[in-house]
Amino acid sequence: MSQQTVRGNLLIGQSGGPTAVINASLVGAVKEALRIDAIDTVYGAIHGVEGLLNRKVIDIGHETSETLQTIMQTPSAYLGSCRYKLREDDPEKAAEILKAHNVRYFLYIGGNDSADTAHRIGAAATAMGYDLRVIGVPKTIDNDLPVTDHCPGYGSAARAIAMATQESALCSQAMPEHYPVKIIEVMGRYAGWLACASSLGKHTPDDAPHLIYIPERKLDYTAFLRDVRNVVRRVGYCVAVVSEHLTDMQGKGVGEQYTQGTDAFGHPLVAGVAQTLVDLVNSELGLRARFDKPGDWQRMSSAHFSKTDVDEAYLVGRMAVRYAVRGVTQKMVTLQRVPGERYACETGLADLEEIANQQKVLPDEFLDKDGAMVSQAFYDYALPLIGAPLPSYARVQPRYVW
Amino acid sequence: MSQQTVRGNLLIGQSGGPTAVINASLVGAVKEALRIDAIDTVYGAIHGVEGLLNRKVIDIGHETSETLQTIMQTPSAYLGSCRYKLREDDPEKAAEILKAHNVRYFLYIGGNDSADTAHRIGAAATAMGYDLRVIGVPKTIDNDLPVTDHCPGYGSAARAIAMATQESALCSQAMPEHYPVKIIEVMGRYAGWLACASSLGKHTPDDAPHLIYIPERKLDYTAFLRDVRNVVRRVGYCVAVVSEHLTDMQGKGVGEQYTQGTDAFGHPLVAGVAQTLVDLVNSELGLRARFDKPGDWQRMSSAHFSKTDVDEAYLVGRMAVRYAVRGVTQKMVTLQRVPGERYACETGLADLEEIANQQKVLPDEFLDKDGAMVSQAFYDYALPLIGAPLPSYARVQPRYVW
Repeated sequence: MSQQTVRGNLLIGQSGGPTAVINASLVGAVKEALRIDAIDTVYGAIHGVEGLLNRKVIDIGHETSETLQTIMQTPSAYLGSCRYKLREDDPEKAAEILKAHNVRYFLYIGGNDSADTAHRIGAAATAMGYDLRVIGVPKTIDNDLPVTDHCPGYGSAARAIAMATQESALCSQAMPEHYPVKIIEVMGRYAGWLACASSLGKHTPDDAPHLIYIPERKLDYTAFLRDVRNVVRRVGYCVAVVSEHLTDMQGKGVGEQYTQGTDAFGHPLVAGVAQTLVDLVNSELGLRARFDKPGDWQRMSSAHFSKTDVDEAYLVGRMAVRYAVRGVTQKMVTLQRVPGERYACETGLADLEEIANQQKVLPDEFLDKDGAMVSQAFYDYALPLIGAPLPSYARVQPRYVW
Repeated sequence: MSQQTVRGNLLIGQSGGPTAVINASLVGAVKEALRIDAIDTVYGAIHGVEGLLNRKVIDIGHETSETLQTIMQTPSAYLGSCRYKLREDDPEKAAEILKAHNVRYFLYIGGNDSADTAHRIGAAATAMGYDLRVIGVPKTIDNDLPVTDHCPGYGSAARAIAMATQESALCSQAMPEHYPVKIIEVMGRYAGWLACASSLGKHTPDDAPHLIYIPERKLDYTAFLRDVRNVVRRVGYCVAVVSEHLTDMQGKGVGEQYTQGTDAFGHPLVAGVAQTLVDLVNSELGLRARFDKPGDWQRMSSAHFSKTDVDEAYLVGRMAVRYAVRGVTQKMVTLQRVPGERYACETGLADLEEIANQQKVLPDEFLDKDGAMVSQAFYDYALPLIGAPLPSYARVQPRYVW
């Protein structure tokens, strides 16, 4: 591949589950591309690689700066997203289409499946002898990409979940006898990063969340029921946060009776963890339980943007263009934490091939030994990512005067 | 009852399901009481009437103004709440305790069950010949109290649901093929005020929510499935908002197989509407469906305070004290909309007895004829209640250039 700047067009697409800040990466890339002489037209593919293959492409470089500003403040994928699994001849077809439109820069914002898609298109271009620069831009609320310190999209979803947990718990605290047990089900297919983020507003052992269950640890129903009962005895109520995907000690999916098939990549479409645990607490402990399942809202809430997250999402979009123009290809932009007292990140690069189809799970040092709570190391890692300090809530002191 | 100011203490309590702004009413009342010479000590009952009966009472008038400010910004009931059903001798017992502590002003923040509680305690005091001023302060996210134009607590929850619906729909819009059907289950036991609030960010027929199902209308499964399929065909995806409590054409509770008994007032503890409808769409239409259930978070989110709602909650708390000092008793403070171009409310009074155990359901004029969407009259009613204008989201125009 040439290390020189090559004149041509740029195409950008968005892929995989949307995040609150995936459009900040889009706008960061578009604005940077508009500043660069070697880049003529800035195209946007509608619904990611599907739009590329079907020639559904817009000229996003012609949007006004007001529109770009509104796009930045809009959660979800402005261009539309997809979960399209490439068929055998798709990579070559995509490379041909890009060549036909003199696209020299192909940026793909996505997670690990998307990294695989981008990598295969890049490889097809190389095989054709076409100088195409392919750069992946990381995003995923799941925070499960390897190599990067964290993923844009995680910080804002983590902020939403941290606040949802504290605030929903205020409700239980006000009426512990009426609502002794609450389950909050959050996203996270293979890794518990989001479930653990529920802890970020917790200051004392009696604060919610009291228990956290994540895919990295098998769920022992007996231990779960014992832990819930003990928290209710000690605190008066229990808030347990669970990932949407849990496996029991026999390796069976919790709540899989509610599961609805698989997606295009063979990932199960999950459903019933919270309902299953609520039923269990009701029947086995005789305690009233209910659940919150913020669902897609947890990753889409504009009221919970983390400024750090927005800024970093913008940065990785901008840097993707810069790297591509410098001749970098088949890489994903990463975030690398700079050691020091104050939190700071700079960008780096990782091979797209290394990202593809891998998951980064929570390291043991981020979890308490018994696995139902996080460690201080997790706070140190995650607190800087969620932006401004979380709100403080007043708590009554029961100094009775009668 | 004396129409003169009587010297003594004031006791305030919070009752029923908490709201995001119930503490604004508390602080409004406390601050007003502290300004009034005739009121000596300002007591707060912990967990409402339970705290009164068990003498768990704090001196909330001694909180610093900083603490009062933090309390105002804290969702849920600072003093703790309850759903306690008075036993036969409780009203007299409560009146005796109030008399023993020279409490002349009893303020109870709550919904219709709480109005009944306050009214019975007031009647017991009257029977004893004790001059006690009893004032109800309205709160309920359900907005189902009669007589008042609306209830403090509704505006903030309505804002949260309006934004949750738009933002969660952005996710479906980005990947309609992957997530063609989404159900959002919101609160509302007997009335669809909150479900209808999901429409407040909707500007065109193709915007979410596409369908709204409320307790006031029986759910016809056949019509539901037909409507969902038609929306998916027309828009590409469908977002339906449903109340937590629906009844089918046979009068059977939707999802009652998941229901977990009843609360102290005999109200069913509801559960499975969303899961039931998701299952139905999957099995009958063969379309992937998923659900969001914001749960308690929808009424507790500090990021979705409506300033109008906070201000009005504060106002009804403040006015409760003023009315009581003027000699009013056995009344609830109401909000009365002032006719005119610009939205404005003033306070009024209604008999506590009139509030007790009644529900205000949605009038027909707020609903479209077919019942699955709201009318313009509902927008005119509800939009002023949710505070600042909702955010605008960018929407791509598919002007393809290839």
